[in-house]
Amino acid sequence: MVWTPSGIVTLLTDFGTLDPYVGIMKGVLLSRCDSLRAAIDLTHAVPPQDTRTAAFHLAHAWRWFPEGSVHVAVVDPGVGSGRAILVALDRGHAFIAPDNGLLGPVLTEDAVVRALDVERFALPNHGRTFHGRDVFAPAAAAMAGGVDPASAGSPAELGARLVLPAPRRSTDGWSGEVLFADRFGNLVTNVSGDDLEVERAWEVVIRGRAVPLCSTYADAPPGELCALVDSFDVVEVARSGGSAAEVLGCSAGEPIELRRRR
Amino acid sequence: MVWTPSGIVTLLTDFGTLDPYVGIMKGVLLSRCDSLRAAIDLTHAVPPQDTRTAAFHLAHAWRWFPEGSVHVAVVDPGVGSGRAILVALDRGHAFIAPDNGLLGPVLTEDAVVRALDVERFALPNHGRTFHGRDVFAPAAAAMAGGVDPASAGSPAELGARLVLPAPRRSTDGWSGEVLFADRFGNLVTNVSGDDLEVERAWEVVIRGRAVPLCSTYADAPPGELCALVDSFDVVEVARSGGSAAEVLGCSAGEPIELRRRR
Amino acid sequence: MVWTPSGIVTLLTDFGTLDPYVGIMKGVLLSRCDSLRAAIDLTHAVPPQDTRTAAFHLAHAWRWFPEGSVHVAVVDPGVGSGRAILVALDRGHAFIAPDNGLLGPVLTEDAVVRALDVERFALPNHGRTFHGRDVFAPAAAAMAGGVDPASAGSPAELGARLVLPAPRRSTDGWSGEVLFADRFGNLVTNVSGDDLEVERAWEVVIRGRAVPLCSTYADAPPGELCALVDSFDVVEVARSGGSAAEVLGCSAGEPIELRRRR
Repeated sequence: MVWTPSGIVTLLTDFGTLDPYVGIMKGVLLSRCDSLRAAIDLTHAVPPQDTRTAAFHLAHAWRWFPEGSVHVAVVDPGVGSGRAILVALDRGHAFIAPDNGLLGPVLTEDAVVRALDVERFALPNHGRTFHGRDVFAPAAAAMAGGVDPASAGSPAELGARLVLPAPRRSTDGWSGEVLFADRFGNLVTNVSGDDLEVERAWEVVIRGRAVPLCSTYADAPPGELCALVDSFDVVEVARSGGSAAEVLGCSAGEPIELRRRR
Repeated sequence: MVWTPSGIVTLLTDFGTLDPYVGIMKGVLLSRCDSLRAAIDLTHAVPPQDTRTAAFHLAHAWRWFPEGSVHVAVVDPGVGSGRAILVALDRGHAFIAPDNGLLGPVLTEDAVVRALDVERFALPNHGRTFHGRDVFAPAAAAMAGGVDPASAGSPAELGARLVLPAPRRSTDGWSGEVLFADRFGNLVTNVSGDDLEVERAWEVVIRGRAVPLCSTYADAPPGELCALVDSFDVVEVARSGGSAAEVLGCSAGEPIELRRRR
Repeated sequence: MVWTPSGIVTLLTDFGTLDPYVGIMKGVLLSRCDSLRAAIDLTHAVPPQDTRTAAFHLAHAWRWFPEGSVHVAVVDPGVGSGRAILVALDRGHAFIAPDNGLLGPVLTEDAVVRALDVERFALPNHGRTFHGRDVFAPAAAAMAGGVDPASAGSPAELGARLVLPAPRRSTDGWSGEVLFADRFGNLVTNVSGDDLEVERAWEVVIRGRAVPLCSTYADAPPGELCALVDSFDVVEVARSGGSAAEVLGCSAGEPIELRRRR
């Protein structure tokens, strides 16, 4: 596979936007890659050290960027410890993330995975607390500028693949759970739209309530709960004109059942 | 009117920045427009489905960008319903927004308005829940890349123009209302500076208090309320070194009176 | 010193991201500088009018950008008053900020400082409330486009240098204070890592508790407090897997002692 960079780097972190950490990473990218086309924020509001939400967002977002993009994810409870940093080349995109399972839901079996050669890419005199600036950003700048991800370190395996819980088959459909609530209070679950036979009518049971699966938000009367296969192609529970999370009083981890309507 | 794109796209949504929705829209823009110069965030913190605040912000912000810019506003309670998406060309800028009144306060009588030909611009296999990614972004990319907005669909009218309340003449001046409070707690109203005869001294009556109209924040002693014609050229009520919204305990919808000082 | 712009402008303000103020500034930059390479947000979440936090962040962030970058800081309680706007050229970078002490911790003795010639750079018909748009942005655009900062106004002095409190020597080490808490609840202090003799073992006394200085977050057991020299090269107090600010119940201004461990 030949690496042809698009000059685009995406950033996904738990750094927030109160402090200039993300801006500083962009400064390093701009300083070290003259051909940088754009540095794009995916989100910096991942809950601190929540590798599961980070993995979900990255798995859904990367595919909308041009081939040759570099995707950097820094949600890194182990910074300063001996954990490796992984670089992967998969479907024409490069990924850089700590070896903590974050890349598990993102990569396919065909991914070329390397343990980043930190000393080759890190800034001189790099410290142990801000690897986003000292290691991830210069490595991303190098790849956005042409360095082949497959040559960025020695062959490695994903140390931990399972950070997102898989739904389980039940007698009547699927048992799953809420992964997170988005800004609108929509409850995003781990059940994929692909798991549902389309010719059937489904409902979601959550907190003892049965919510029918609709095909669009606009199908539900104002104030009513509805479920649908969302733009991430997973089942979510929403409330027309309001917040499902608030009305149901639930958040990440809440169990749900998908079952055929009778 | 010849359409000469600047390569700049602005984005105004109610998507927030917790989730990667905005980043994904930028991925689509970058994937489909090689000549994209910049994708600029106006704000993504419009309260969910608040077309009024979106309209106010867009009406004030677009003019500061170069001619040939494309302004995308996605505050879209009707997503997935049959509502049209409007494209307009006005004063050398392109605008794309749902047909829900959002563009009413933005456009002039001279605007060329089209109902977007969704099937022509949408991504293949586009869904019904995330039109920002599947329809608005690829349409904006096309226009930023050279497609004339006037050719983007069939002629259309603005379905609903009035989302911002107009102030009314009163015996002694103007009756208006607070449109929203900004981050500093400044109360932004719907009374324009153009409505006030400059040679007169004015005051704003709000919550039973008379607040004199000053010419700058620095004119008011610390802690005191003052009113002024702000950078959006509308009357706002501010508190020197603090939050007027907090001190007055009021927010959007609060009635105000502008009257001549005696 | 010859001024060779990088085409990069950084923005640090207290404008927040609820309103389109920052986007409007970028519109002005793009309108007036065809060679603009990037406009990068450092942060817009400086507490309103908190020049101290702004100074701390700018002093740490600017150095990660390429030489020839223009750094704009708008935290400006005196907007509309007679306060000057300063332009400085220092170590190959340009800085623009109100003359309120913000640049004090940023500049060296060698900085070339000018009082911006406002009428030369400001937009026509500029107002008195939004100098970020009307004065700072067009001045930054001019410099990013080639105007030498040293020619941008008449020679000036920094009116007020001391906005960050300096630590004081104590019998046993240093007396300092917490400058702010970051998003993780890490307490950032004003004691520099350079002030500590490396061969000694140190501890931070805060709220009556002695917290040992470690070399990385990963050294502390989960839930435990630890102190370390952070990526800004200052001492901070953190809590492994949690928020030190919350556990200790303290924030900016809290006194601390650095003392040798016994």
